[in-house]
Amino acid sequence: MSNFRAATAQLKRRLGVCVTTDHDVLFAASFDGSKLSFLPDAVVRPRTNAHISAVLTLANKHRVPVTTRGAGSSLTGSGSPVKGGWVLDLSKWKKITVDADAGMAQVQAGAVVGDVHKAVEAKGWFYPPDPASKQYSTIGGNIACNAGGMHGGKYGVTRDFVLALKGFLPTGEYVEWGASTKKFSAGFNLRDLWIGSEGMLGVITEATLKLIPLPAARWTLLTAFADELAAFKAVRALFAQRVQPAICEFLDRTSVQCAEAKSGKTVFAGQAGRPVVLLELAGTPSEVADQKVLVLAWAQANALAFREARDRAEAEQLWEVRRKCSGAMFALGDSKLNEDIVVPMRNYEKFAVFLDKLRKSSRLPIPTFGHLGDGNLHVNIMYHRENRAEYLRAEKAVGTLMAGVVKLGGAISGEHGIGLAKTPFLRLQHSPAQIKAMQAVKLALDPNGILNPGKMFTLFKVWEHPRLKIALPWDHK
Amino acid sequence: MSNFRAATAQLKRRLGVCVTTDHDVLFAASFDGSKLSFLPDAVVRPRTNAHISAVLTLANKHRVPVTTRGAGSSLTGSGSPVKGGWVLDLSKWKKITVDADAGMAQVQAGAVVGDVHKAVEAKGWFYPPDPASKQYSTIGGNIACNAGGMHGGKYGVTRDFVLALKGFLPTGEYVEWGASTKKFSAGFNLRDLWIGSEGMLGVITEATLKLIPLPAARWTLLTAFADELAAFKAVRALFAQRVQPAICEFLDRTSVQCAEAKSGKTVFAGQAGRPVVLLELAGTPSEVADQKVLVLAWAQANALAFREARDRAEAEQLWEVRRKCSGAMFALGDSKLNEDIVVPMRNYEKFAVFLDKLRKSSRLPIPTFGHLGDGNLHVNIMYHRENRAEYLRAEKAVGTLMAGVVKLGGAISGEHGIGLAKTPFLRLQHSPAQIKAMQAVKLALDPNGILNPGKMFTLFKVWEHPRLKIALPWDHK
Repeated sequence: MSNFRAATAQLKRRLGVCVTTDHDVLFAASFDGSKLSFLPDAVVRPRTNAHISAVLTLANKHRVPVTTRGAGSSLTGSGSPVKGGWVLDLSKWKKITVDADAGMAQVQAGAVVGDVHKAVEAKGWFYPPDPASKQYSTIGGNIACNAGGMHGGKYGVTRDFVLALKGFLPTGEYVEWGASTKKFSAGFNLRDLWIGSEGMLGVITEATLKLIPLPAARWTLLTAFADELAAFKAVRALFAQRVQPAICEFLDRTSVQCAEAKSGKTVFAGQAGRPVVLLELAGTPSEVADQKVLVLAWAQANALAFREARDRAEAEQLWEVRRKCSGAMFALGDSKLNEDIVVPMRNYEKFAVFLDKLRKSSRLPIPTFGHLGDGNLHVNIMYHRENRAEYLRAEKAVGTLMAGVVKLGGAISGEHGIGLAKTPFLRLQHSPAQIKAMQAVKLALDPNGILNPGKMFTLFKVWEHPRLKIALPWDHK
Repeated sequence: MSNFRAATAQLKRRLGVCVTTDHDVLFAASFDGSKLSFLPDAVVRPRTNAHISAVLTLANKHRVPVTTRGAGSSLTGSGSPVKGGWVLDLSKWKKITVDADAGMAQVQAGAVVGDVHKAVEAKGWFYPPDPASKQYSTIGGNIACNAGGMHGGKYGVTRDFVLALKGFLPTGEYVEWGASTKKFSAGFNLRDLWIGSEGMLGVITEATLKLIPLPAARWTLLTAFADELAAFKAVRALFAQRVQPAICEFLDRTSVQCAEAKSGKTVFAGQAGRPVVLLELAGTPSEVADQKVLVLAWAQANALAFREARDRAEAEQLWEVRRKCSGAMFALGDSKLNEDIVVPMRNYEKFAVFLDKLRKSSRLPIPTFGHLGDGNLHVNIMYHRENRAEYLRAEKAVGTLMAGVVKLGGAISGEHGIGLAKTPFLRLQHSPAQIKAMQAVKLALDPNGILNPGKMFTLFKVWEHPRLKIALPWDHK
């Protein structure tokens, strides 16, 4: 802070009331869901494209860092202005327009994902990406980290539904990538380069989203298994039958036990503490009816027990367990490393064995749940912050986890991105040549390095930084 | 040619029999489907990754252009070595491995798309992209131009089915982008930057493709309309009902008339010379049965006449018309400008009016057919090469077409790419800031400009270059 006093004064003269330096506002913009806090010099709430262009032009001239912000619900620190400078707050840019014939939506970056769902579903369309943060997080943020969610296995992730982007280069120049069409093969594809680049290559102001027809029918089945290995094997067997459930969520024994301890209820009567897989089919009524036959036969052959939801209310009760399990884990430790790794389906069983070893070697509880349709599992390493021995074992365990995942052909992040928290592991995923290429692209598009500096490539020792002790609306606790 | 004699000699010493300078081989690699021919200095057929790395390292050292080649079926000249140098022929890299449980395929760049279809369909999986060139074109080439085809509207294009790429940076360094997983949010996404970059940013050696379950049922309906405007309006009404046909192909009056004149048969008995829309539903038997009811009601309400195929053999006869119409057009002129433009669905009707005006102002036949599921239409401007007045009107018409398409919010290319042939129009699609950003990325990744130079950004006056008079296996004539 304060390095950029003169530039900030100039910005205020230019943009007037859009620029705030009130301490409360700066503090609120100083952290994201990671609770890593760094005060910016100003918060800018632009009202027009010209405002954004002016911010970037000035920032470039004076080398002021600019961190674009939606809801600030990122879990990795990608929204924390680690180098100070200006926070460009787009949370008021929330217009949503649905083209009900073509099945597309024009959405401003600050629109909340849950609002997009509502707007398009009201017209019979469906936007599948559904991160757990959907009631808070914005489309801009979802695009910046290529967010996923429960529907990823069958339908795909944010990237798969973005047809076009509008926004600004770090230089302040307005650009459009792609068109409101499902085909586009004209020039290099900078649209997808922006998607997942965590606000480091451009400022996204608007997206055209591709929609699919809203599934008319859904059907939910809860299945229990003897252990994690049995669950993983069974799911592989289901997919091998060419059945694609819309959702296929897994909770391991520890996650189930936490949920049961917290709620005082058994997730699956008679199968207390067993790992479960929650399946949901979606489609036309007859499509769902067809697949239901296959899934029930599969459950009969593979599960220890299974139970279908009689109606949407009962299905909702089942989903409640999945949503609550994340918060329930804090019974096992006051701190959690939530890693959103991905494992290829062919290595699900190997990963179950690997994870068991990691639990033993770290002597820490590692409840794991997540999306078995795409192998994106949330591995939660639980520890007590004040217990130095536990903290060191947790630090070691996360490194072992990441190396193991990459060795199994997977990814260190499936939907959260790198931000600050995963910078120690980026080089496990990417070779020096790959990193060099990425950095060359960054330098080419943002020669002064003003957009979201300090993220992704710069090692950030997350262990050495205190996290705010503050409750956020989307905390699972 | 001959500028790179010393470098080529060195390459021969390094790679031995993999390097050819025989004239016949050089000639065969001098052109692609555009028939724009430029002799390279050598053709390299690498056998190993080390070979490819050596080629690029040497090329970088001596600034030798390298044009990667699969089948050479590109229609834009993107495969023609316009600056000479070395052609890197990957057509023998054709291994295909299917992961039948996960629904993925590992495919080497030289594998023919039709062979990929066969390999995955044998295991109950489906790879939807199906360019008309599928019996010839390679996966590497399809990725390089982000090929589409008839299934684009419902299922998406090549990009939507590529999970990971392996290959080389122009510097000769080996890289991997993405993993064999459906989620990946770790680092900048250079995978999608490579896709559609026409071999200018890297050499693709292998791809992991995402597959979907093979639709068990298909149903085909032929519909006829009074005129093009009526057909476009009707299709929009169908999509507004949330019906997504797997295929929705359109043939305008001129296309139908050409096909009828050539075959001596009426496409739709009693509706000679009327524009037609060919629809195909695909999915589970019950899903298709459900949608069939909606489509038949729609046809009853909107079409002049309609006729369903009683079986696959009859469906095949209907598709035959669609496939043959392109060749039949040469009755209208010995030369054709086949532009694969895209129009957003909301502007289909405006485009019909625009095209009629263009036919009148150019006084040329412009038969148009293509994919109404995604607005990707093949607009064929027919003229006689030796008739200078026609040729000039054709040149003017294509410029008017491209400007009109961009004005309607569409794209100058939906599946062919820019190559040489569309360089005059790139700046209609992209602003100076957009072009500058693309060129900055090119310079960052390929500082010596060795990969496929002279394409995309450099104006190529395609009119001034003779085309080979040679029959290619995939010519429609």
